[in-house]
Amino acid sequence: MTRPADYSLSHPCLLSRVPRFDFETDVAVVGFGAAGSCAAIEARGTGARVMLFEVTSGSGGAAALSGGEIYVGGGGGSLQQRTAGFEDRTEDFHSYLMMAGGPNADAAKVRLYADNALAHLDWLIAQGVEFKNSYIAERVMEPLTDDCLVWTGSEEAWPFSAQARPAPRGHTVRREGWSAGKYLMDTLAARVHAVGVDVRFDARAIALVVDERGAVHGLVVRIDNEPRFVRARGGVVLCAGGFIMNRDMVKRHAPALLRSDHPIGTVDDGSGIRLGMSAGGASINMMEGFVTVPWYPPGSLVKGIFVNELGQRFINEDCYHGRVSQFILDQPGNRIWLLQDHETYAPGLLHETARIGIGAAGESWEEIERELQLPEDTLSATVAFYNRHASRGEDPLFHKAKKWLKPLDKPPFVALDCRVDHAQYSSFTLGGLDTLPTGEVLTEGREAIAGLYAAGRNACGLPRWGKGYSSGLSIADCTFSGRQAGRQAARAAREGSARTS
Amino acid sequence: MTRPADYSLSHPCLLSRVPRFDFETDVAVVGFGAAGSCAAIEARGTGARVMLFEVTSGSGGAAALSGGEIYVGGGGGSLQQRTAGFEDRTEDFHSYLMMAGGPNADAAKVRLYADNALAHLDWLIAQGVEFKNSYIAERVMEPLTDDCLVWTGSEEAWPFSAQARPAPRGHTVRREGWSAGKYLMDTLAARVHAVGVDVRFDARAIALVVDERGAVHGLVVRIDNEPRFVRARGGVVLCAGGFIMNRDMVKRHAPALLRSDHPIGTVDDGSGIRLGMSAGGASINMMEGFVTVPWYPPGSLVKGIFVNELGQRFINEDCYHGRVSQFILDQPGNRIWLLQDHETYAPGLLHETARIGIGAAGESWEEIERELQLPEDTLSATVAFYNRHASRGEDPLFHKAKKWLKPLDKPPFVALDCRVDHAQYSSFTLGGLDTLPTGEVLTEGREAIAGLYAAGRNACGLPRWGKGYSSGLSIADCTFSGRQAGRQAARAAREGSARTS
Repeated sequence: MTRPADYSLSHPCLLSRVPRFDFETDVAVVGFGAAGSCAAIEARGTGARVMLFEVTSGSGGAAALSGGEIYVGGGGGSLQQRTAGFEDRTEDFHSYLMMAGGPNADAAKVRLYADNALAHLDWLIAQGVEFKNSYIAERVMEPLTDDCLVWTGSEEAWPFSAQARPAPRGHTVRREGWSAGKYLMDTLAARVHAVGVDVRFDARAIALVVDERGAVHGLVVRIDNEPRFVRARGGVVLCAGGFIMNRDMVKRHAPALLRSDHPIGTVDDGSGIRLGMSAGGASINMMEGFVTVPWYPPGSLVKGIFVNELGQRFINEDCYHGRVSQFILDQPGNRIWLLQDHETYAPGLLHETARIGIGAAGESWEEIERELQLPEDTLSATVAFYNRHASRGEDPLFHKAKKWLKPLDKPPFVALDCRVDHAQYSSFTLGGLDTLPTGEVLTEGREAIAGLYAAGRNACGLPRWGKGYSSGLSIADCTFSGRQAGRQAARAAREGSARTS
Repeated sequence: MTRPADYSLSHPCLLSRVPRFDFETDVAVVGFGAAGSCAAIEARGTGARVMLFEVTSGSGGAAALSGGEIYVGGGGGSLQQRTAGFEDRTEDFHSYLMMAGGPNADAAKVRLYADNALAHLDWLIAQGVEFKNSYIAERVMEPLTDDCLVWTGSEEAWPFSAQARPAPRGHTVRREGWSAGKYLMDTLAARVHAVGVDVRFDARAIALVVDERGAVHGLVVRIDNEPRFVRARGGVVLCAGGFIMNRDMVKRHAPALLRSDHPIGTVDDGSGIRLGMSAGGASINMMEGFVTVPWYPPGSLVKGIFVNELGQRFINEDCYHGRVSQFILDQPGNRIWLLQDHETYAPGLLHETARIGIGAAGESWEEIERELQLPEDTLSATVAFYNRHASRGEDPLFHKAKKWLKPLDKPPFVALDCRVDHAQYSSFTLGGLDTLPTGEVLTEGREAIAGLYAAGRNACGLPRWGKGYSSGLSIADCTFSGRQAGRQAARAAREGSARTS
């Protein structure tokens, strides 16, 4: 008798060796997070039979831990954007997404999403997800009210602002308090059940089933410690998340992320990526992650400046907190301070949680410099240079926008200690399986693998550069890419096209 | 009839589908570079039958383009090190290699090599490779004489010098002129033929042959446009190099390397890595590469300082040229200058080749600053700060060693233009298949794949961090890891242990 230990994430099970099929379905989805939910709903909507296998006893995935923001724009603006006075042209949205994707941005995925984001928001609303028609102009991490539209990226900051007309694009689901993502995911999960997806909890995907040509025909799942064999006529959709919780994988592929001591994930053990690789799928962009320390709000803190342990400034501080944090990781050493004066300083909403404390306080910048044991004329020279230009409304080196520029010259002064090995830096991974916009998984030679799809952080989608990440990009990508993959797998089942061997 | 097009780097060929075996051998080696040569020699030395398949019509690989340095130390020092007065303790060599490997250094591989590097040098000598007993103290890229021992890393530079007692460890083969690596590779190739390895040129590996459990039994090679089937009883040793010449792969895995316009490679199209992945092998560390612009020699240039387009300094300039170049890539923008005064400036030996020219010249640093259109008090303030401390023999920010410190205060001054999109930055990749020190290829779950080995840049070995790379590390790793893999595959053939299905 075969046992679960006979199967491996690293080697697929050959179709000819499957003893029996315990389940037959059109589309098999692995993972009940944002991507898996949307893949299942969309596939089911075409009339396909859909089974969803989830390793835990519940739904939600990492998206349930999020603030529930979805990055949406273009098409002249959503209802919320237009009401708030923002006409968001598709080309500006597109340009921002391309910049946000960094040197390896996926032009085809960006094009598809830029053209369809508004319709995607409508689709989420049709699933029962509510969005208030309201706007918060201040800098927030996520709205703690039930309000919707917020700024969640570096849209107004250089160099993004120079290439794409800025608009707020974080559309937050209508729920008060932290982690509104739980409401988003509960709503999508209810919809999954309502449309008749056959959900199996406590079911761990342990191997793919492939034929001799490499086409995927189903998977092996472990339920009650027994291997169960699933035939999926249209294919398997991998939506099992990233790999931030698998520290060995992080070390091998994205060692810089080990400096974050606060991984954001639920399962996210890389098993979905590994399943895809076992069938010849290529994993790409594996070194990239989202990293952040929540150094604002309040927005007044953005008027301060960051310096590294050489006393050098290194970023326009009006960027998104995650972009700033990525630049922090690039600095030599681990000591980083956020400098504030009496007028700009206010206790950070999340500073206590994030272990950002006061590293030095004094009546002059020279005093702060000495207290931090920096050589003379380093930090103090940096502040003097900044102040001289800020008083003229200029930042010649880093191009911080005028509204955030003010000389830091009103004592007392403070240096907030944002040390990487002390403050709480959160992270998740942005590398995953290479896919087409349809969700079809690609080999390293960019050939599509028949019957295999991936979405969300199991794949590599819109967000793929820590320095370009913006809140809401990952959930936008998970929900949208999940839908594409679910639809494509259902189509394959309908056309019987996946199997040619 | 089967045709080459029926086979794919992305999917292995099932053993049960092999129509016939055209060749039977104990060990099949793919690639006739440094790793493949040593794998073949070592396997053959145990009495195994060995076939070597090379896609080009000749031998040498990227190693033949190199300076022929091999990074060797420990054990109290080689003959050359001891003669030159350096007692190189194994623990210092080990510490340096661990630091050089960066955050994802492979402790097991470093340990094995640190303990056996001297014996490895003896082995190379036994193959006919000559090394003179001589030492060059000056900073060079590679010796243009037939001399041997040179400094090829950051051994004397902070932070390396603080953790490992420095010694020169670049052992260069005895050959005058540039690219002595050609002599090294010709010598090893002659040895390959002499010991009776069956070498097939113009033979492209196009697929691995695996059984239903994933064990590797051989490979498919294309010869005269026909697929030829090779059974390798002990296994296949992949030594087909890195992927720097495959610009699509570079874009997906190591986009930062696209900024180098001068890839160093011969074939290096990633096909060997892809073959390994097709059998479930994990590729790791794919974002890392070696990058360099040859800004010295002469060594006097090391007394200058680098500044970025903000006028900031960013590195102790006494580091290895490649480490400095990696830090250059991390700087914002692409404008980089090397500042020199009348006493330190000398035409760089390779500046013309590398397109490093004079960006500005003047009688004061303020004049240079204006000429480069930098804001007032940026570059000039950086030089003033540096000079103030250099005159006291100190570099409080970057810890450049005292011997290289001198105030840059003798006009005229020059700013050498090292722009990334203008000067010649060379590169090769440091990511590849994950392997044990024996060369056994590992899955993402770190299970060894029976019958599959990899070495050199086809694998991920000792050099795996651009900021730690030192000349000679890659050839040391290629030749040493090739030997381990060849020996292990031969042992598997002898013991018949690779095949259990």
